[in-house]
Amino acid sequence: MSNSGSDYAPLTVETLPQRLSSVAEVSTRLGSDASSWQVREVGDGNLNLVFIVESPLGAIVVKQALPYVRLVGDSWPLPLSRSYFEFNALVRQAERAPGMVPELYYFDRHQALLVMEFLSPHHILRHSLMRTERHEGLGAALGEFCADTLFKGSDLCMDAAKRKADVALFAGNVALCDITESLVFTDPFYPAPMNRHTSPQLDDSVQNLRADTAAKVAAQDMKYRFCSRAETLLHGDLHTGSVMVSGKDVKVIDPEFALYGPMGFDIGMLMANFLMAWFAQPGHVSDDQQRDAYQRWILETVSDIWTRFQDRFETLWAQERNGMLYPEVLFDRAGESKAVRQACDAQLVAIWEDAMGFCGAEMIRRILGLAHIAEFEEIEDADLRGHCERGALALGRELLVNRQDVTSLQSLFDQLKRATAQEPLTS
Amino acid sequence: MSNSGSDYAPLTVETLPQRLSSVAEVSTRLGSDASSWQVREVGDGNLNLVFIVESPLGAIVVKQALPYVRLVGDSWPLPLSRSYFEFNALVRQAERAPGMVPELYYFDRHQALLVMEFLSPHHILRHSLMRTERHEGLGAALGEFCADTLFKGSDLCMDAAKRKADVALFAGNVALCDITESLVFTDPFYPAPMNRHTSPQLDDSVQNLRADTAAKVAAQDMKYRFCSRAETLLHGDLHTGSVMVSGKDVKVIDPEFALYGPMGFDIGMLMANFLMAWFAQPGHVSDDQQRDAYQRWILETVSDIWTRFQDRFETLWAQERNGMLYPEVLFDRAGESKAVRQACDAQLVAIWEDAMGFCGAEMIRRILGLAHIAEFEEIEDADLRGHCERGALALGRELLVNRQDVTSLQSLFDQLKRATAQEPLTS
Repeated sequence: MSNSGSDYAPLTVETLPQRLSSVAEVSTRLGSDASSWQVREVGDGNLNLVFIVESPLGAIVVKQALPYVRLVGDSWPLPLSRSYFEFNALVRQAERAPGMVPELYYFDRHQALLVMEFLSPHHILRHSLMRTERHEGLGAALGEFCADTLFKGSDLCMDAAKRKADVALFAGNVALCDITESLVFTDPFYPAPMNRHTSPQLDDSVQNLRADTAAKVAAQDMKYRFCSRAETLLHGDLHTGSVMVSGKDVKVIDPEFALYGPMGFDIGMLMANFLMAWFAQPGHVSDDQQRDAYQRWILETVSDIWTRFQDRFETLWAQERNGMLYPEVLFDRAGESKAVRQACDAQLVAIWEDAMGFCGAEMIRRILGLAHIAEFEEIEDADLRGHCERGALALGRELLVNRQDVTSLQSLFDQLKRATAQEPLTS
Repeated sequence: MSNSGSDYAPLTVETLPQRLSSVAEVSTRLGSDASSWQVREVGDGNLNLVFIVESPLGAIVVKQALPYVRLVGDSWPLPLSRSYFEFNALVRQAERAPGMVPELYYFDRHQALLVMEFLSPHHILRHSLMRTERHEGLGAALGEFCADTLFKGSDLCMDAAKRKADVALFAGNVALCDITESLVFTDPFYPAPMNRHTSPQLDDSVQNLRADTAAKVAAQDMKYRFCSRAETLLHGDLHTGSVMVSGKDVKVIDPEFALYGPMGFDIGMLMANFLMAWFAQPGHVSDDQQRDAYQRWILETVSDIWTRFQDRFETLWAQERNGMLYPEVLFDRAGESKAVRQACDAQLVAIWEDAMGFCGAEMIRRILGLAHIAEFEEIEDADLRGHCERGALALGRELLVNRQDVTSLQSLFDQLKRATAQEPLTS
């Protein structure tokens, strides 16, 4: 890991080989003959440059931050420091959830540049879901990733001084937190300039939401939790575009939004993106039986995420509770282990409730805010797209406002069916 | 404010004049003839050196951190950096609650040294309460201080980037947070080496508490809130020994425990110390009528603290909600101001509940932990002291474990009477 002193300059397909050929961590993998390297720019995200560099000897991924939001352009500056937070998050995730993030080869803070493992033949999970592919063990892997990273970044497990140092470090990720704070919790609920929605089909939904005081207050309640509850190191952007899959292998990428925040956030956002994939299915699969079967698999995956999260969290609580909270020394009397398990259960209840609130906010903002998702966007028939989105919106609103009443997976799935029934497909 | 490069050395009564005579902020107040200065060391706290320096021209207070806990000795090291956090907290409190903290004249980070206004003829509130003195407007002043500092240090009011920078800054106050985390929330609940209590009178209370799983879990729940909910900049040690009074004037001192934490903490600790003064009254006033009257005044003061806090918080919510939370732009429709007021009410309910939990923890630790309070300590008759402490313990346990049921001042006072009735004075 180096901090080269040279001035920042964005890489291009042309300049990359020359600029990285002297980096040992790169040349050991690709060879030193940079003329043999094949470079492709593949960034399809909203923020960064991403290159795949291949040579006869191997392949790497090079990710470089741009000083602005790629999705919007240089009218929206965004600090390069996000690369530094991504680096720090990746290092911690690799320790806490081994094998679940790409291996990091090299980091250059001044160039805002990360060199990482090329995951192949992996695909972005969101695209895989759009192709109705199934991945065995996907939900369990994601649930376990959440439990490992969320538990181990908290005062339930960490040394208190180290956690406070990390709280201070990640508190510097101001600009990316601001994106979440604005785009998820506030902008969709008033006429913010960059909002967009399927129009005219959802015009009335937009009007309803802006008049929906309970939803607006609930969104701000969740925003308050997001910005003040520094429970653990979050991925911060854990949607299905931040997951890569290949068969049974699952990797989580792109933690540049990392921050100290509430445990329920990552899980809620992840569930929201699966649930939206569920709602988008009529836009991608016309065969009823095939669609039903895939939708069932999506809900099984959501169920697996939570169930494995809960199981793993309980195991970690029992076996790796090495932080200053609920210390063993307090509970060494006979019969107290039950109480300690109940304290764990109470934490899980609170995490679930938060997750439901964040899930609802995420669903709403992906339909009425700035950043939309491909599952909906790629439905060309606007009436059909609007129909799919309305169902998701109805569920999102319900979860956001009445999160305390949605106390279980079953209750979540009941609400999902209710939201669908409210929006029958009139075609 | 200077950062002199010289090595740290603790001041003495003898060395102080020479070492501070060249500091302009000092000599402008005391004159440059250091031989005319009268220096007294008056530190009666647990941690620091405190000097009063007087000359014919004026007077100042000089507070210097020691590299260890004064109460315990150099076997317990404590970083000098706490002076830096005190400095930063004082500056912010002076802005947010004008006139409520001593004026700061000079700060030397390397010497861990603060030069401040000499408050005269002020006394420490705790001593004043032991002399059964009354101070008009005391509760209101303290309630307003809490509302001003707590509201204005949060994302309800601050610029989000500035608040995050302050979260990072105060996350460095690790050692002093550790004191609170250990001494308030954990040590009293198991046989920690430095615990002490009125013995044998409270031996059974100690045994009961160590077997009280619900209380231990509740204390850890409050600890989790304390260390993870970075809602606002807290004073962090707001007991009646951190308040100075003179007639109607009230000043809050000693914020070296400052941290980002939950709003209810300062208020809960403050109330706990008034309530303990209430329980200690039989040890200080033998005349029933006189004692009843003073106890009534104490409860009126507790009531004033919360009532004024609530009023001022509501006013700030309505008039100075300039942060990113619950922004006006979301709620500009007719009829929505009621919902925004309800959101404020919900915050106040949550703050009150937290305050009750922290209040209970503070009462317990001051009786069974390391750091006791003068009101109890100075009751020489151990039976009488034990009696007073038992009442406070009973209330503390109730507030800690059943904080959700103690929903109002009236309910708090009902519990206080119940706790007293459980511990009739058998003499």
